Amino acid sequence: MAVYTEVTDEALETFLTLYDIGRVVAFRGIAEGVENSNYALKTTAGDFILTLYEKRVDPTDLPWFLGLMEHLAAQGLPCPLPVRGCDGANLNPLAGRIAAITTFLPGVWPRRVHIEHCEPLGAALAQLHLGGQGFTPSRANALGPQGWRPLLQKCLPQADALLPGLGAELAASLDHILAHWPRHLPRGHIHADLFPDNVFFLDGKISGLIDFYFAATDIYAYDIAVCLNAWCFERDFSFNVTKSRFLLRGYSSLRPLVPEERAALPILAQGSAMRFLLTRLYDWLHTPAGALVTRKNPLEYMKKLRFHEAAASVAAYGI
Amino acid sequence: MAVYTEVTDEALETFLTLYDIGRVVAFRGIAEGVENSNYALKTTAGDFILTLYEKRVDPTDLPWFLGLMEHLAAQGLPCPLPVRGCDGANLNPLAGRIAAITTFLPGVWPRRVHIEHCEPLGAALAQLHLGGQGFTPSRANALGPQGWRPLLQKCLPQADALLPGLGAELAASLDHILAHWPRHLPRGHIHADLFPDNVFFLDGKISGLIDFYFAATDIYAYDIAVCLNAWCFERDFSFNVTKSRFLLRGYSSLRPLVPEERAALPILAQGSAMRFLLTRLYDWLHTPAGALVTRKNPLEYMKKLRFHEAAASVAAYGI
Repeated sequence: MAVYTEVTDEALETFLTLYDIGRVVAFRGIAEGVENSNYALKTTAGDFILTLYEKRVDPTDLPWFLGLMEHLAAQGLPCPLPVRGCDGANLNPLAGRIAAITTFLPGVWPRRVHIEHCEPLGAALAQLHLGGQGFTPSRANALGPQGWRPLLQKCLPQADALLPGLGAELAASLDHILAHWPRHLPRGHIHADLFPDNVFFLDGKISGLIDFYFAATDIYAYDIAVCLNAWCFERDFSFNVTKSRFLLRGYSSLRPLVPEERAALPILAQGSAMRFLLTRLYDWLHTPAGALVTRKNPLEYMKKLRFHEAAASVAAYGI
Repeated sequence: MAVYTEVTDEALETFLTLYDIGRVVAFRGIAEGVENSNYALKTTAGDFILTLYEKRVDPTDLPWFLGLMEHLAAQGLPCPLPVRGCDGANLNPLAGRIAAITTFLPGVWPRRVHIEHCEPLGAALAQLHLGGQGFTPSRANALGPQGWRPLLQKCLPQADALLPGLGAELAASLDHILAHWPRHLPRGHIHADLFPDNVFFLDGKISGLIDFYFAATDIYAYDIAVCLNAWCFERDFSFNVTKSRFLLRGYSSLRPLVPEERAALPILAQGSAMRFLLTRLYDWLHTPAGALVTRKNPLEYMKKLRFHEAAASVAAYGI
């Protein structure tokens, strides 16, 4: 997984003449990430990541993603810095795709989330939100609430084949979420996909935030809700309120939440669970058997959604 | 593909205390190789490869493989050098598997084979054969001619479902191969799987030979036959005799072939085509749909086998 497009040695050499980063020393496909093809590229100038954007990414979005990463890196955030070619371009064609070179970030992503990861994670998320404030272009969140009903419609005909009653339960949950979706909360650029495999740690500190290809301009606290879903549930889908407390403490240390954001957390967490449930369900129902992609079980997010539906207030998250 | 076993950060840290190679800087799964799990491991001491041996590898073979690699590296061959732990062991348990750390080799494997690759490849193969001569333990080739009939038997019941008449054609070809298999040819340690993705090039020279986990003690010229199949056919399965001539020239420059080896090349090439055809056919018929492994089309090797069956003499290979 994660190498969908092969790059010939000749194509790579030609591509690298566009950049001033020395000559190839090594080039190995990376088995991480599921949307794009990623290669570890070592040159005489150092270590880099070469990404070829695959079909799920809209090429017209790429300048925004790379612009945001460049802006955030300049603000001191440990995110990949797109390397500009000799002509100033940070996107160039390669092997029938659009490709970019970014700096290599050290660190290891946590295979198991511990309490100790959560406070630095929260602080890094706030740093990302604050750091993005000077970047003026915006990008609508295609996988935000406006996108969920169309996605559900595409899944409904087959949803009950996965779990009887699933379609009706999702439709009712979505009605509730959209009817109560908060307006007028603080907004800005969010990562929108900050799962553990997108966060590198080194010596207990965050050393890298990667994979900005779902980033968008949306409610800040929705990004927190994504992290609550991605970092605070245990393997048995029980919710670890200590992890969420530390996550929120880390975030609030840099960007304190306003009362409206705190009050909205349960509905934002429901929406975030719905978003991942729907995209996983769509992939589950539409990925041909035998495809090289790992289909993630959508029902895990059903359990998370139900937890958030039962959350009466922000107290459910430990604050 | 190629990351079957996940390693937690804690397990990795504990594992590295067994070695004197500094602290973890980065750890990324590599999307190459199909038998084992491979990670690029960067430490404060440099770049390494961490391999976890998966079920296809017999753990009792591992000391032989690693011993051969250590011997070959000492002879100057650019192969991975297993790193010994503080107690001298080069194999240690990790995440329920046996694992080894080896040195990182620079270079890029050729996605498209050009004429220019073939002479250095042949020379490197001869260097491997000569360099292995001082390594006294031997390992029988489980995927050598003795293994082919049992493998065919397991495939016969379903072979014709893939291609009508396939079973009978394979049975007849195998009878011919085994009846004419050469005896008394020069023998020693062979790589037995030297496909392009196991050979790194840098600046036109070979910088790495990797993946010794099919290595065995067998006929040297059989290893040449494997390379003829793996390097000298074009994408349309036409045979490029210029490539084979350069391959054989490079080999002979370091280890000239005796007349019996030259005469045996067509039958050895048939045997090698049969070996890869049978293992691919077995995988094709026995890999569950939806598995994460790329099934390679066995019928490519049917075409290669037929080419070698039509080869009247070594002249078919350009010498």
